[in-house]
Parts: sequence; C-alpha cells; structure tokens
Amino acid sequence: MDEFDIIARYFAPLAKDPGALSLKDDAAFIPPRPGFDLVITTDQITEDTDFFATDPPEMIAQKGLRVSLSDLAAKGAAPAFYLLNLTLPQGVSEDWLAAFASGLRRDQAEFDISLLGGDMGAGRLAIAVTGFGFVPKGRMVKRSGAKVGDAVYVTGTIGDSSGGLALLKGRAVGLGEAERAYLVNRYRVPQPPVAFGKNLYDTAHASVDVSDGLIADLGHVASASGVRIVVESERVPLSPEFKALWGPDAFARAVAAGDDYQIAFTASPDSTGPFTRIGHVVAGDGVSLTVKGELVAIPSPGYRHF
Amino acid sequence: MDEFDIIARYFAPLAKDPGALSLKDDAAFIPPRPGFDLVITTDQITEDTDFFATDPPEMIAQKGLRVSLSDLAAKGAAPAFYLLNLTLPQGVSEDWLAAFASGLRRDQAEFDISLLGGDMGAGRLAIAVTGFGFVPKGRMVKRSGAKVGDAVYVTGTIGDSSGGLALLKGRAVGLGEAERAYLVNRYRVPQPPVAFGKNLYDTAHASVDVSDGLIADLGHVASASGVRIVVESERVPLSPEFKALWGPDAFARAVAAGDDYQIAFTASPDSTGPFTRIGHVVAGDGVSLTVKGELVAIPSPGYRHF
Repeated sequence: MDEFDIIARYFAPLAKDPGALSLKDDAAFIPPRPGFDLVITTDQITEDTDFFATDPPEMIAQKGLRVSLSDLAAKGAAPAFYLLNLTLPQGVSEDWLAAFASGLRRDQAEFDISLLGGDMGAGRLAIAVTGFGFVPKGRMVKRSGAKVGDAVYVTGTIGDSSGGLALLKGRAVGLGEAERAYLVNRYRVPQPPVAFGKNLYDTAHASVDVSDGLIADLGHVASASGVRIVVESERVPLSPEFKALWGPDAFARAVAAGDDYQIAFTASPDSTGPFTRIGHVVAGDGVSLTVKGELVAIPSPGYRHF
Repeated sequence: MDEFDIIARYFAPLAKDPGALSLKDDAAFIPPRPGFDLVITTDQITEDTDFFATDPPEMIAQKGLRVSLSDLAAKGAAPAFYLLNLTLPQGVSEDWLAAFASGLRRDQAEFDISLLGGDMGAGRLAIAVTGFGFVPKGRMVKRSGAKVGDAVYVTGTIGDSSGGLALLKGRAVGLGEAERAYLVNRYRVPQPPVAFGKNLYDTAHASVDVSDGLIADLGHVASASGVRIVVESERVPLSPEFKALWGPDAFARAVAAGDDYQIAFTASPDSTGPFTRIGHVVAGDGVSLTVKGELVAIPSPGYRHF
C-alpha cells in the first residue's frame, strides 16, 4: 500500500476534528480561542535510542505521543491536538500499522486529543509528535519563574524508565515478574501526569518535564530562573521496584537517568497535592544535593556510589 | 558538540519571537490572534529522496522550509513561524551546520518568518518542517471548493524541478550552462509564490500546492470538490529550459512529475493576476486532458509520448 492508502486506512479515522479536514487537504487549521495561548512542543523518538523495533507497536505509538504530552503537562497546558511525522521502514506490515494506530486511538480517548495532520517518510523507524495544548493567556508555566524561598516538587517516581531499560538490556537481578513488568512498562509507556498538568499554572512558579534526568532538568530551571536549586536526596521518590533493582545505587541511578516524563516544579512551600517535596530554592546558581542536610557530590550517569 | 551546543550556537539566534522563549523551554506558545485561524502544515524531506547529501547545505535548508511555505501559500495563509525536526548524521561538521543555519536565516528574512522550536535526532539526514500561518477566520482555501464553471489556474511553470533532478541524475543533453543551472536550482530551491498566496482567499475557490504532480494534485481537488477538471494541455506553462531538455516529451514529463511547489487553483473565469489559465471545471469526477479540444490519455510517470 502506498502513503495515501496508509493514511486513509489507519490515520484518517483518528482525525476527528473539523480542522483536520480528514487529512485530505494540504494543511489543517485551528480556530482562534480567545483568552488562551496555544502551547506547542515537538519531540521525536527513534528506534534503538528511545525504543526497540521489537517493542509492541501500540506501546511505541503511546510513547511517541506521551513524550509530547509530558511537555504540555509541564507547561500547564490542556492537550488538544497532535501532528504525526512518521518514518517507516520499507515493507512495514499492515498488522504493525494497525497495532500502531490502535495505540494512538487508545491514547486519544484517554487524553481527549485528536490527530490534526502529519507526514510520512521512509527510513529507520522514527516517530515525531508535535503536541498542541491550550493554557489561559500568559499563564504558561516557564522554566524561568523559580523564586528564592520556593520549594521544589516532583510528580510520580523517578528512575523507573531507566530501570526498565536496564532490564531490557540484560541486567539480571532477583526481581519478581511483576516488578520486572512494572519497570519495563514504565520504559515503554511513560505515564505523564496530564490531568494534574492542566491546572499547574495555579500552583507552579517554574516547571520542566523530567526527560533529560532530574538533576539535568532542574539545572535548566535553575539556569533559566537565575537561582540555585537544592535537592534533598532522601526525599526523592523512588519506587520499591527501582530500589530492588539497584539497591544502594538507586538514588544515583535515578537522578542521572532520563525518560521519566514526570513534572518537576517550584512553588510555595505550603503547596499540597499529588506530588512530593524534594528540595528548595536558594540564591546562587546550579543544582546541589544534600544528604541529611550535608552537601554531597552530584552523581553523573557513570557514577555508582556516594 | 552535543545537541544543546548545536541549538545554542546555530538555532537559538533564529528564534526571535518571544513565544519561542529562545528555544530554552519545553515548549513555545502562540498568543491568540482574534479573527484569524492558525493554518498548520508539516512536511519532511529526506536525503536521496528529496535532495542529495552533497547539495549545498544552505539549499537543503531552504528546500526544507519552502516545501511547507508552499502549502501555506496554497491555503491563502501568511507564513509566520516554523518548527524544525532535524535528523543529523553522526559527525556532521560545524561548517555544514553553519551553512545550513545561514540558509534558514536567509529565508526567514525573505519570507518574514521565525523559528519557534524543534527537536533533533541522529540518523540519515532528514528535515521536517512544520509551518504556521494566519488566514482570516474561515477563509482558508480548501481543496473542496471548486465549482462547475470555474477556470483552473496555475502559478509559475511546471516541471522545472523534475528537469533539474533528471540533469543531476545524469541526463546529458545539449543545454547551455545557464539553462542547466536554472533547472538544477529549481530542484534544489523551490520558489513557492508566498507573496501571492497571502491573498489567495480573495480569488480562489479551491487550491492545492503542486507537489505530487499537476495531474495528481488536480485530482485531489476534483475528488474533494466532487467535480471533473479538464486541463487544456497546450496552456500548461513550461519554461524554455524545460522544453529544451525534453523536446516533444516535455508536456507529459511536466504534468506527471512532482516537486513543483507552485499553486494550482480554481476561480472565476474572469480572474487575472500572476498565473496562467490551464483549464476548466465541469460536472463529473477525475481529471481529463485535452489537446486542441480533443480528449487525450493521461500520461503516467513512465509515459514518454502521446
């Protein structure tokens, strides 16, 4: 089947918004939404770097989508639409395409979004998703709003995706099947806090999605805001499964890994909600780590103990 | 240099709009523009399919951009922003990146657009551009608006890009250096009628950018509009260079080729402007061709004479 057939059969049914014109035009359109800014983010995932070609196609599709949904959530935006730029290997099967499209369909229902357009090329499997969301005008949560005196928070748990990747790459430890499945699923299908993100602008002063690694991403916030962020190591939320995988290495592994797709943000110290306080903002620059109040060295990706 | 260095050095200087946040955040934003729809299109070009890796990097950048600007022009939208998803081979040189960025910079100035964001991956060279433009609310020119009695028009000349590609692939004919350069440049750097496109909604009833080939793209308009389009062969504008290249094959080559990035549209038969009348709209479906009023067979890409 050629590109037109693939679009008509697998992707046009996902394009429900009138502005998508059933994927039958040169372009799509989004009507003006007075009082709202349109937030736009684009991310690509590539075979072997971000997923394995043998992963279930539904999950590859979900990962491609959710990597962008995570950025929208971290900016306080309610997701609405996405564009899909798909690079497919020659001879991709109809079964694969059907499963891939069903992963998109499932997430469209879960997150109330729809396909607006896209393009297709041939080559090593890669999925680039451009996500569109709405936030009240001027309220997008930037990296640059952290203030001295803020507390630092994170949603979910940190490191799980990297644990799943380590398992897929052959790390053999005495984990049970359920623990193993939990971590591998966190690698394959990120769980960005989309519902929580929609009102993030009511709470957060600055925010970032945790994709490069907790320390690296908080470094982006510190740099953009002109402040120093202190992370209190013992507060960083780790799952029991991740702790079982790495033992005493778990913290260092977690904060230097990436692919978490949770939200790290700064806000008033009296904030409460579905998130964990992990540190505070002081004058200065960069990120520092403490254990029981004492400064310790920042682990790097190759670091094992501290 | 890593991805962050490349972005800071070569791409952040292209991101002048406040909504791009200097490419230092997770997302960009576009404020609401009351009275205007935002038109969105995305296209990717890939090494060996759409350009050669040895082409001048400035021109590869320009082609990547202009392929999307052409879609915006065909919809009556004034271009404003673009996202760049770039797949770069390992070890790409700084010279290459600098030249690529200078091609973007030149076209940003020419078309009054700016970079809003993007992402980067590693692999065979590929450039995906998502273009954003504005059109007065409800005025986007769709493929579906052609009416019986309309005339059919096209901007520029048809086939030149395919002629340039034939020359690059080794076709040897007695063209002079200037004719050869003209055609090769049309392949490498499309010339979409962006300024003309900005007010297309005042003229056109239906429109498409000519990228798949004139006959194929007019077929999309006929199908979306529920009409038959008759192309009067002798009216299709061909350049002297293209005619010199193909001789009696020129017309068949031109209308079955692609990559023209001109606009084909239908409008009132009394329309005048920088475009050529090439046919008319009747009841029925599909596209038909006439020579001196007589129906002839549609040439296919492999067709040589008729």
